Amino acid sequence: MTKKSFVTTALSIMALVSACSSDKPPKPEFDESSIETSVMTRTNEPVNIIHPRTSTDEKLVELGKKLYFEPRLSRSGFISCNSCHNLSIGGSDNLKTSIGHKWQKGPINAPTVLNSSMNIAQFWNGRAKDLKEQAAEQIANPGEMAYPHELAVAGLQTIPGYRKDFRDVFGSDRINIEKISKAIAAFEETQVTPNSRFDNWLKGDDNALTKEELEGYKLFKTSGCTTCHNGESLGGNSYRKMGLVEPYKTPNPAKGVETITGKVTDRFIFKVPTLRNVQLTYPYFHDGEAQTLGQAVEIMGRIQLGRTFSPQENAQIVAFLKTLTGDQPKIVLPILPPSADDTPRHNPFE
Amino acid sequence: MTKKSFVTTALSIMALVSACSSDKPPKPEFDESSIETSVMTRTNEPVNIIHPRTSTDEKLVELGKKLYFEPRLSRSGFISCNSCHNLSIGGSDNLKTSIGHKWQKGPINAPTVLNSSMNIAQFWNGRAKDLKEQAAEQIANPGEMAYPHELAVAGLQTIPGYRKDFRDVFGSDRINIEKISKAIAAFEETQVTPNSRFDNWLKGDDNALTKEELEGYKLFKTSGCTTCHNGESLGGNSYRKMGLVEPYKTPNPAKGVETITGKVTDRFIFKVPTLRNVQLTYPYFHDGEAQTLGQAVEIMGRIQLGRTFSPQENAQIVAFLKTLTGDQPKIVLPILPPSADDTPRHNPFE
Repeated sequence: MTKKSFVTTALSIMALVSACSSDKPPKPEFDESSIETSVMTRTNEPVNIIHPRTSTDEKLVELGKKLYFEPRLSRSGFISCNSCHNLSIGGSDNLKTSIGHKWQKGPINAPTVLNSSMNIAQFWNGRAKDLKEQAAEQIANPGEMAYPHELAVAGLQTIPGYRKDFRDVFGSDRINIEKISKAIAAFEETQVTPNSRFDNWLKGDDNALTKEELEGYKLFKTSGCTTCHNGESLGGNSYRKMGLVEPYKTPNPAKGVETITGKVTDRFIFKVPTLRNVQLTYPYFHDGEAQTLGQAVEIMGRIQLGRTFSPQENAQIVAFLKTLTGDQPKIVLPILPPSADDTPRHNPFE
Repeated sequence: MTKKSFVTTALSIMALVSACSSDKPPKPEFDESSIETSVMTRTNEPVNIIHPRTSTDEKLVELGKKLYFEPRLSRSGFISCNSCHNLSIGGSDNLKTSIGHKWQKGPINAPTVLNSSMNIAQFWNGRAKDLKEQAAEQIANPGEMAYPHELAVAGLQTIPGYRKDFRDVFGSDRINIEKISKAIAAFEETQVTPNSRFDNWLKGDDNALTKEELEGYKLFKTSGCTTCHNGESLGGNSYRKMGLVEPYKTPNPAKGVETITGKVTDRFIFKVPTLRNVQLTYPYFHDGEAQTLGQAVEIMGRIQLGRTFSPQENAQIVAFLKTLTGDQPKIVLPILPPSADDTPRHNPFE
């Protein structure tokens, strides 16, 4: 496949996906003051410096943090957002596919929550337009948290501490799923990982990368990886077919965007995942079948670019990818308000 | 049952339990400087002020915190100590009995980790002499984290970040279960909750309690509750029979200390739970059958003391119990070191 036909294919794929508007502005505000203005800043790269996001509504974010760690948003009383998007381990769960209510096997690899606000849409097939929609779906999804919204809301409504929090944030203690998911999304939007070694290099620090890492980045660009993995997030901003050059074989039945549009031409089209913190977010791909970065690079080269990297080239790209680990968010574990006597108790075994 | 025969029974029960040495010193050091020396301090009470514990080995505690939040210590890669002893919700899971590997139903209610270093032994039946022994058992228990020690250790041993941590703490990067459980225990020993309103009252602040709460405390003493629920932790320092005056009926098959000693006379003898933070640690009793504090007080009065509290008395005692919620530990969520290429991957569904 020539480069031109690759780009044409990619563009037509993007046109098929309604959520894929490239001019969509990033939702959270970022802190302008943190942008370094070194004369050496490398601005002519396909990868951009990532900047921390600050929120103008700290109370909303703090409430969202509580809800993110809140197991009472699940039917079992055991699973929270953080169970599968664990902020101790890169915002994912490091499992091939996640564990849902009653230990159900999830259908797809859990994407990281880190930097996820920069995605053009949420989920591998983009079926949620934003983090708010994503959070709401996860709570009710029978294979995940499995708690119908009306029950989740009614439970929180009985908890005095939450009534106070919602009143403080929204001016009314009337809880609903829109407010819950808005708060969770606001917290998630702050989960950004700046100051990776690669960002330091972009900012002009020539010593931030080793020779091997820099070679890896050059190869990453010249091989075409940046066609899809570009921008602040090195991904998350387009949809592409898994298996452009060579069909991808997987035991996972996920069909990608086809599930949303019903079009066979959308089969195996997935949102391109971010490569930020990719060292932490193993295993890789929508099916979690690539266990190591080396495997992921080998497969991507072969099926997306028609290229076989030598062991040395593979190692160089892997070395570069490991420079994308940024500052992990510093989270003070929230203390959740206790249930009241009339709060429904959870029975995970019923 | 007279008070004298109650005490005699209690003493003989205690004699049966080897781990129950009342002269055992608290393991963690507490910060002497934090002891307030107000002339008004109430020292003549059966309940004592609880003091924060500091550790002399911060690196050990920090490593222990990582391991406490480490899902790779479970066979599934999903369950950590914090899953069932969740520090966002009072160090327990607020479930009747816990969820183990593959969603197994646990046999007994998860006791809180908060202030647990003050217990004379660990588990409801005291089968672990300390937190170190407890942590090690939980990891390997097939109904809980279900990970044989040799596999858990071998997994961590492959992780460069942990090898560094263990070398920094123990002088060698050779990981074993003793070091793992020692670190977890060291972290847990710092999980102490001082400065409850009741502690403030004990320190001499007459305004710390309402009239109702103070009435509740007086009733708590005069009714005999403090026979078992006394000391810094209001419990945790003795074993008693559940159902001293009236047999306790429960669908839960746990037999208490009998399981350890094999003696029928030890049936239904359990370690007395702490009442610190009891508002957060619902549901109550070893079987988790009491869902509210009001129910727990009613049942305790009836089956342990042969007493029926009036609704007003019950409410007073409950009001007092809610003053026992102390400062919850401020935990900065640890960032766990990533697995290496040769770290065994977890498959929770195999």
